[in-house]
Amino acid sequence: MDLVFELLNGNTRALARAISLVENGGVEKEALLGSIFHLTGKAMVVGITGSPGAGKSSLVDKLIGELRANGASVGVLAVDPTSPFTGGALLGDRIRMQEHVLDKDVFIRSMGTRGSLGGLARATREAIKILDAFGKDVILVETVGVGQSELDVMHTVDTTVVVLTPGAGDVVQTMKAGIMEIADIFAVNKADMEGADRLAVEIENMLDLGQSGPWRPPVVKTVSLTGQGVGDLYQALTKHWAYLRESGLLEKKREQRLRGEVFDLVVEELRQEIDSRLENKGMMDELLARVISREINPYVAADRILSELRGARKYG
Amino acid sequence: MDLVFELLNGNTRALARAISLVENGGVEKEALLGSIFHLTGKAMVVGITGSPGAGKSSLVDKLIGELRANGASVGVLAVDPTSPFTGGALLGDRIRMQEHVLDKDVFIRSMGTRGSLGGLARATREAIKILDAFGKDVILVETVGVGQSELDVMHTVDTTVVVLTPGAGDVVQTMKAGIMEIADIFAVNKADMEGADRLAVEIENMLDLGQSGPWRPPVVKTVSLTGQGVGDLYQALTKHWAYLRESGLLEKKREQRLRGEVFDLVVEELRQEIDSRLENKGMMDELLARVISREINPYVAADRILSELRGARKYG
Repeated sequence: MDLVFELLNGNTRALARAISLVENGGVEKEALLGSIFHLTGKAMVVGITGSPGAGKSSLVDKLIGELRANGASVGVLAVDPTSPFTGGALLGDRIRMQEHVLDKDVFIRSMGTRGSLGGLARATREAIKILDAFGKDVILVETVGVGQSELDVMHTVDTTVVVLTPGAGDVVQTMKAGIMEIADIFAVNKADMEGADRLAVEIENMLDLGQSGPWRPPVVKTVSLTGQGVGDLYQALTKHWAYLRESGLLEKKREQRLRGEVFDLVVEELRQEIDSRLENKGMMDELLARVISREINPYVAADRILSELRGARKYG
Repeated sequence: MDLVFELLNGNTRALARAISLVENGGVEKEALLGSIFHLTGKAMVVGITGSPGAGKSSLVDKLIGELRANGASVGVLAVDPTSPFTGGALLGDRIRMQEHVLDKDVFIRSMGTRGSLGGLARATREAIKILDAFGKDVILVETVGVGQSELDVMHTVDTTVVVLTPGAGDVVQTMKAGIMEIADIFAVNKADMEGADRLAVEIENMLDLGQSGPWRPPVVKTVSLTGQGVGDLYQALTKHWAYLRESGLLEKKREQRLRGEVFDLVVEELRQEIDSRLENKGMMDELLARVISREINPYVAADRILSELRGARKYG
């Protein structure tokens, strides 16, 4: 496959094309991901999340600079569960990151939903694999907002940075969205604004209330516009990476993730098989009609389908 | 099953216990849902979503009054993807709705995550079935926020009301979360505040940009504290219900939903079987070890598992 060859030879255009391929799905995608899989598992993947307007993009911009200064090559995925009504909402963000546009060791890409929120998390996971195989040392995944799709994305990263800003009741919002539990590092951004110290204290209080584990998320103050504190954020990241490696947690988390991926592939394949198999026989329609008329309940229908599948010598 | 008997005899405590049962999961849950299924499919289910602070709870409160005045019995599920840090965040909302606490034909219940956001959508779907079988004419499902879990919940209702308020850039936020597409009715709440007319125009403009279908979501202005406009909201609901029925869309949507439910049951069962079956043989561990060492890729591992399943005379 030419694309794989070009990709592994450091062709940035091939990188862009490969990511488009996983966004669009299809058979080629599987071949591509299969051929590069052996090269994955090297990059450190950092998720950066927080409310819109928290200054995540400029923080990412400054963090890229810090990572580059420390010799790391960087891939950035800006993930936006944009509605079909908008499209290209992250254009502004990409322009903001243009400082690094001429740096060959920085690759920035935004990822949109194209209709399916569930598909976004999957495409992001696959794009991470591509950047990883391409040889990026650090992959930054920036997400807009704090919904389920962001949580899904965050489950595919090694370190999660939650960005909060003074005012706006961010702490309560973040708690509600279940983001607090997944934070490995807190960045209090716009730390030159009033209320930044209070916010930092609020977060620490919240952490005191939660279960204490071996890793207590540090609270780092940053000013993304000036770059103040971004060095501290980088230090916090390297500390977390060291913790992940030394505790064996990195290996464990990645193993679990791979296990989940294999499982999902099997289930997805089975789902398609069941669909086409039962469809052919008209069995699904018949059972469904009886469920709709309330003659049988969904559990009985599911049991019938399972019996049919089990009774078959081969069901594929 | 005593619980089913009591439930179908209008015992409100049994209703509360039945919903706790679906929240907690387990074998009993399946038996319960199986026994009441033939009584479902009668209630109209309305989802009410919007940003925190949009006044959804007081709007629901006033809407309950309007529905009661029109002779409908009402069930309310207040769904909150609360973090483990908080717990009982909706207590305030429940107190606010206490106006109806002595009305036997109103049942209000809040539903929390207890750890799993995906599980919340499922438990909500099941609680809707219980309220439906119990005989509630209208079921209101209020969700906090606009994330994926809210979208999942909204996919299980017949009519979705999106509540927006002047200021705070709600329109853009809502668009981004993909909520705009699922709205059947827009409520501009706090319509006595400055900017309400402009917000209504913004929504209409947004609707002009979108694809036009046979149903154009009406934009209703409400003041939930005084009840102003809640009659209009009720009228909009009845119009949407009439549209759903006459167009055949109600039947179609509900059929699709049942189909999805049966499918999910089958896939879930298969997932558990695969897990235990491969676990016993140590096959999963062996394959996973080879994936982790990058000897094979996840697609190859999934194929091996599928072959194993297919080759078996019976795989159950």
